[in-house]
Amino acid sequence: MLDINVTVEVEETLSSLNDALTAGDVKAVAALFATDSYWRDLVAVSWNLKTVEGPAGVTDLLRSQLAHCHLRNFKIQDGEDPTWDGEVVTAWVTFETDTGRGWGLLRLKDGRIWTLLTALQELKGFEENRGTRRPMGAEHGARKNRRSWKELRDAETASLGYETQPYTVIIGGGQGGIALGARLRQLGVPAIVLDRHDRPGDQWRSRYKSLCLHDPIWYDHLPYIKFPDNWPVFTPKDKVGDWLEMYTKVMEINYWSRTEVRKADFDEETGTWTVEVDRDGEKVTLRPTQLVLATGMSGKPNMPTFPGMDSFKGTIQHSSQHDGPDAWTGKKVVVVGSNNSAHDICAALWEADADVTMVQRSSTHIVRSDTLMEIGLGALYSEEALANGVTTEKADMIFASLPYKIMHEFQIPLYDQMRERDAEFYAGLEKAGFQLDWGDDGSGLFLKYLRRGSGYYIDVGASQLIIDGEVKLVRGQVDHFEEDSVVLNDGTRLEADLVVMATGFGSMNGWAADLISQEVADRVGKVWGLGSDTTKDPGPWEGEQRNMWKPTQQENLWFHGGNLHQSRHYSLYLALQLKARLEGLETPVYGLQDVHHLS
Amino acid sequence: MLDINVTVEVEETLSSLNDALTAGDVKAVAALFATDSYWRDLVAVSWNLKTVEGPAGVTDLLRSQLAHCHLRNFKIQDGEDPTWDGEVVTAWVTFETDTGRGWGLLRLKDGRIWTLLTALQELKGFEENRGTRRPMGAEHGARKNRRSWKELRDAETASLGYETQPYTVIIGGGQGGIALGARLRQLGVPAIVLDRHDRPGDQWRSRYKSLCLHDPIWYDHLPYIKFPDNWPVFTPKDKVGDWLEMYTKVMEINYWSRTEVRKADFDEETGTWTVEVDRDGEKVTLRPTQLVLATGMSGKPNMPTFPGMDSFKGTIQHSSQHDGPDAWTGKKVVVVGSNNSAHDICAALWEADADVTMVQRSSTHIVRSDTLMEIGLGALYSEEALANGVTTEKADMIFASLPYKIMHEFQIPLYDQMRERDAEFYAGLEKAGFQLDWGDDGSGLFLKYLRRGSGYYIDVGASQLIIDGEVKLVRGQVDHFEEDSVVLNDGTRLEADLVVMATGFGSMNGWAADLISQEVADRVGKVWGLGSDTTKDPGPWEGEQRNMWKPTQQENLWFHGGNLHQSRHYSLYLALQLKARLEGLETPVYGLQDVHHLS
Repeated sequence: MLDINVTVEVEETLSSLNDALTAGDVKAVAALFATDSYWRDLVAVSWNLKTVEGPAGVTDLLRSQLAHCHLRNFKIQDGEDPTWDGEVVTAWVTFETDTGRGWGLLRLKDGRIWTLLTALQELKGFEENRGTRRPMGAEHGARKNRRSWKELRDAETASLGYETQPYTVIIGGGQGGIALGARLRQLGVPAIVLDRHDRPGDQWRSRYKSLCLHDPIWYDHLPYIKFPDNWPVFTPKDKVGDWLEMYTKVMEINYWSRTEVRKADFDEETGTWTVEVDRDGEKVTLRPTQLVLATGMSGKPNMPTFPGMDSFKGTIQHSSQHDGPDAWTGKKVVVVGSNNSAHDICAALWEADADVTMVQRSSTHIVRSDTLMEIGLGALYSEEALANGVTTEKADMIFASLPYKIMHEFQIPLYDQMRERDAEFYAGLEKAGFQLDWGDDGSGLFLKYLRRGSGYYIDVGASQLIIDGEVKLVRGQVDHFEEDSVVLNDGTRLEADLVVMATGFGSMNGWAADLISQEVADRVGKVWGLGSDTTKDPGPWEGEQRNMWKPTQQENLWFHGGNLHQSRHYSLYLALQLKARLEGLETPVYGLQDVHHLS
Repeated sequence: MLDINVTVEVEETLSSLNDALTAGDVKAVAALFATDSYWRDLVAVSWNLKTVEGPAGVTDLLRSQLAHCHLRNFKIQDGEDPTWDGEVVTAWVTFETDTGRGWGLLRLKDGRIWTLLTALQELKGFEENRGTRRPMGAEHGARKNRRSWKELRDAETASLGYETQPYTVIIGGGQGGIALGARLRQLGVPAIVLDRHDRPGDQWRSRYKSLCLHDPIWYDHLPYIKFPDNWPVFTPKDKVGDWLEMYTKVMEINYWSRTEVRKADFDEETGTWTVEVDRDGEKVTLRPTQLVLATGMSGKPNMPTFPGMDSFKGTIQHSSQHDGPDAWTGKKVVVVGSNNSAHDICAALWEADADVTMVQRSSTHIVRSDTLMEIGLGALYSEEALANGVTTEKADMIFASLPYKIMHEFQIPLYDQMRERDAEFYAGLEKAGFQLDWGDDGSGLFLKYLRRGSGYYIDVGASQLIIDGEVKLVRGQVDHFEEDSVVLNDGTRLEADLVVMATGFGSMNGWAADLISQEVADRVGKVWGLGSDTTKDPGPWEGEQRNMWKPTQQENLWFHGGNLHQSRHYSLYLALQLKARLEGLETPVYGLQDVHHLS
């Protein structure tokens, strides 16, 4: 197909779409969609994060929402020519509603809409003050008793949470809380980020010493300020910490360090929360309207208990408490678990000449970092992608435009490639007794992450130690502890001075139970997962990550988190939802999720 | 001329240029240049910052340098089509030498080279680790006793200046020292930045409270990390301070705060400096090879003395000591001077209800900030420029490509426009008794800055206060102080509780005298100025800013400074010169400047 024909086809489709939308003709809109098709909407139409399927799904979405939002004016994005790969036509589009402006990605197959992503970018009348709208800083002219930037900032800092109340309180000040805090500040939503550590970034600094980001830099940018191009591919944890700290400062986020939340309660009548906090020894009561739990996927340690732990004479640490190998040179260490942290910790202990044994309790998905970067991420997040014009913002949108329902179909062939490329490596691991998997359906790492947030290791070197027997491997379940050892259920006795329990982290739902109440936690239900009916991600199919970045069954309670990519991209949609509510805009939510699982 | 013809013309010129260069035919190269032409070279050919004029100048430069550097391979820059404005053809070019790769801008008039800028961008074999060359951060694989990023950084910090010596010491940690520190770190040149303040950024934080940058944001970026697009147009001083502090941290600059230099001596035999410093109470001796004075244009207060000062009962402050108006509400204040600081301080005092009188000692150039932004800077440094594809990097090069010799010809018409646009404003100032000037030749602000670094105010509101008589204005010279007043030479008596001496700053040469010796200061001579033979910039014509960012008559002594734009752009050329010397590359300097003035 010639470029010009591709453009004409997209223009005709958008014209039909616009006509049908303007006429309120839901049937005609639905007829533009293929039988197998997916419309993913991020807040623009649904005031929710929602994927609807096929003409029936489109019909249902629009019957509920079109009269409220008046979705309209789809156009090919300025300067972006549609492309055709022989089967699929792809086009960047823009659109608007009564309340906002949006950006999206459209794919056509055989003349019908196959996938459509519509993502709200800004609220009309509440556009961010950036670029041509940036503030002046110095106000020209003179006026009596003007206060300087610093005086105003100091006054705000002193008053917020005391004389004035934030509209939003964010619990948890890792990358999630910080990215959302930055966006809310830009949008003029008064907010405080609460965190128990001494300084922003300590969430990373306090982890085991060899930790580096497992995702490459192009995937890791925060909003507004990108990492500079001298930044390492895999950022060491303390450097991540320093960046988060400076970012918090220069983005003027109201961040309360050394602050722990004692209790949060929602008052149905006033529609506000009462959040009791301990701010570095001082009791403060905050009364925000909105409460965001950004406590993280890796915030709440899973610490199983076993008989005999009390009488064990060595040291037992959860992986999140383990700060590095230095004290364990020449000592015997058992690491229980075989995901990312377990592997990193084993390798670092081996480097420090500890005697290390890993206990693999269940199969693990392993991909080599190089391979993952090239085959899994390269097209979207790499120097090459940037050189091809795929900015971080575009990459995020392309990534978001692949419907979760069919994402495995795109992922399986990539992981097949990886398996082939690194066949020798995998053979070595199997020979060493390591039990591998590729996800229930062979779809690999991203889907494992989205479905269950666990079960994998991105190999940066530890696997070779296992292949070579430098880190010893045993398989089985821990049965009990003895004075000087861990005993597995097959009777294997592992002597240990230190046992590191790399046993993962609890659900974010657990935070709601701890901080608010079990009742609220149960009302909200399971957080994370797609409902794929695979291991640790029970159905029914939800189509989006449960409870993340969108309204929950608990009024004014939100969950935010995930890796740096998600913290960057999804913080926008959460921030826009909060801003709309602050400004009293109508926000009719389509398809609030039902609760099928408690945690 | 058609676009295609423009390109052909440039290609033909470059082809002739390359042929002549490769043949070593200096005459043939010179013949390509117009009679009135300018070749500005930034380190690439001259290992100096040098503008040569006409075929004779080109001949002299190449006779000296061509055999060393083998300048060659001029090409139109990839993706950049030459343009024609009806008179001048402009083309972005790239080129190389034996040691480096460069970027430049070529202008042709009537088929000959009218202006040529050649700027070294990187040294072959010592390219910066950025983009595709960025470090990995996490090294894949495992090896015994590996140290983490933090351990390595801590070890470096503990050792540098004690067990190991920096190759370069930079005295002064404002934007100049910080920008150079960042570039040297990127280039792998061990360096320490010394600064007397408590924290990076205090150079700005400690100034008067109403201070904001007078240059707009697009002009102010540091290397590597640009200000985000929510940043104000005119950054308040404390916000500049916070940015510099975070930048120093994340760019991993070795920065010694609370450190004062007692003495620096050069040993001709060893070719190294001995720098005695007081680091927060600890005496440390540093032995760098290169010493950079980045003590700033506004580092060394000019504090004139007058009879009777001792018996004055009020307070006398230099403008750099004045921290704001808060203590002076209802008090009488005399501000001596009429440049930027004087105006800012007067306005802030008026805002705080002080009774303020400005003493104008000599004529001042005033332009309104809006007008300057639109007419003076807009084409290069603005949102509009960015939208037109003029990145900061391109703007810097275009700005650098206009030869100082003829820059006034470009500037005068702009300032004529400004005068016309704001005619009413200027009439008001004159009516109020304010003595205006536009530079000796009407060329306005930038040339005043380049020639003498003083004599102007970018109006952000204080002028209206003078027009309205809200800030009182008197003209004259201070003759003496009495117990309660300042007395001018015409006998005018100004009662004062506070006298702010906004009397400017001393030459950077004075720092060399203070820190090294008068002998070295005299050997180096005047720092700053072009030799334009205008007020405070005596001739002879030098063609570049004296002693800035280039070799001086004192071996291994360099000066760095200026506004944020200069700190950003010229730090590159200084850093490349230092790196070349560290690596032992041949760096034959063309046309080391003669000394005509001591300070």
